Amino acid sequence: MRDPAENGQLALLLEVAGTPKPGNVDRERDYGDLRFEHFLAGAVGARTGLRAAADGASIGTAFESSIEGMSGQSGGNTQFGALLVTVPLVRAAADGRLTPDGVTETVEATTVEDACAFYEAFEHVGVAVDDPPEGLDSLDVRRGAAATDALRERGATLYDVMALSADRDGVAAEWCSGFERSFEAAGWLLDDEGPIHRRASRAFLRLLAAEPDTFVITRNGETAAEEATRRARAVLDGEADADALAEEFVARDINPGTTADITAGALFVALERGLEV
Amino acid sequence: MRDPAENGQLALLLEVAGTPKPGNVDRERDYGDLRFEHFLAGAVGARTGLRAAADGASIGTAFESSIEGMSGQSGGNTQFGALLVTVPLVRAAADGRLTPDGVTETVEATTVEDACAFYEAFEHVGVAVDDPPEGLDSLDVRRGAAATDALRERGATLYDVMALSADRDGVAAEWCSGFERSFEAAGWLLDDEGPIHRRASRAFLRLLAAEPDTFVITRNGETAAEEATRRARAVLDGEADADALAEEFVARDINPGTTADITAGALFVALERGLEV
Repeated sequence: MRDPAENGQLALLLEVAGTPKPGNVDRERDYGDLRFEHFLAGAVGARTGLRAAADGASIGTAFESSIEGMSGQSGGNTQFGALLVTVPLVRAAADGRLTPDGVTETVEATTVEDACAFYEAFEHVGVAVDDPPEGLDSLDVRRGAAATDALRERGATLYDVMALSADRDGVAAEWCSGFERSFEAAGWLLDDEGPIHRRASRAFLRLLAAEPDTFVITRNGETAAEEATRRARAVLDGEADADALAEEFVARDINPGTTADITAGALFVALERGLEV
Repeated sequence: MRDPAENGQLALLLEVAGTPKPGNVDRERDYGDLRFEHFLAGAVGARTGLRAAADGASIGTAFESSIEGMSGQSGGNTQFGALLVTVPLVRAAADGRLTPDGVTETVEATTVEDACAFYEAFEHVGVAVDDPPEGLDSLDVRRGAAATDALRERGATLYDVMALSADRDGVAAEWCSGFERSFEAAGWLLDDEGPIHRRASRAFLRLLAAEPDTFVITRNGETAAEEATRRARAVLDGEADADALAEEFVARDINPGTTADITAGALFVALERGLEV
């Protein structure tokens, strides 16, 4: 009944509603200047780009459109990473190939123009990112549209750009691994029971317990990221309380945002595979 | 930046996120089988109908489309009344006349075909309604599409249908009063400060304190509706706690849903008039 564009938007909404998701905005927690309502408005604004992805626009154009719409609220970056996971999945679903191989074909088919549109998306909103790899300053995403000449000179497609940072960005790693973690967590969501805001919380914790969050590495350092993973595991082992951890991480500004992005991708795949809302 | 269809969808989302709204699903409260996630999915599904309203489809067709989309979740009726308030406001905004007079022109221009589409919307979802007025059994909305012959014989427009129940249905009363309460509460939202989920809560309480909720009258009786109004006033007077009242009303299944519907309309008007998210 819902088409992939609609399920993409719903995945964004179900992701932010999932609670507790330690360190992230969720149904019960806001950061001071980044609140639940900003994520609602971000999801509303992203719909046009998700619709474009489902209707056959290029991945880069659809993504840039989704970010332009998402950024029409005052909270800043709400769903940049979540959309970078979700937009190719929406396209793959619309093409009837929502599998690891199918979405790999989708992202491998991206072009230099897709890469240019991706860089232009950074003009709409501030995103916390690492420095580019050694010797690739000309491809720093923070250059925005100013980097497009360098992209064209190198003939770098959007897939190439993602491959450059797959070792230190969890979303880029999804692009280069058949969206492995999104599909795995979709299975957890489907096998789980009860309200979806609790399933999303559990999937988030399992993802975080399995791998350090690259957004935490970027913003807080490796030690904090390892701590977040260790403490998520303690929650899953019944040795710590998820709500208490959520309060603590928000207070310390330890925000496992990449894990939330992959949770959004997982929710999308689960919705397409029959997760009933 | 957001157009009226997008603001319509965002109004639905901000309404359900508003907390506490005693007796309603909100960011912090679910009913057992009617949960926050159902409202998220309802808002996602309603977007196509809201888009149709903004793009010039007839009010009845746009409304019926929004309800068809809204009903694509397992919680049942989430936003029937909210959409019945919001769809004409979206149209009026798209036509550049989002004023009490402008939206009155919009609803007075509805036709018999709009009325037929409205009745067809009841085929998509169960809605708790009163018996029709004496002698008008043939126009009972619960007849759904079976009532269309009677509508055509009487030449009853959708506005005429609303006028028949304006004295006992708060949404119909909005149609017949220039959406007076929606516009008034939009002013409260704009004059208020702080996060929108708290502004929505306060606007809801002021609406409930001012007039008994007709959905509570239908489902729980006049005494319960008068109690709800009295106790909302006590919260506003600082004599009672809103969260405690919210817990109690959910436990007693006293659901001032019409007041929530009008809150959604107020949020839409406020968004169109510059409420920043």
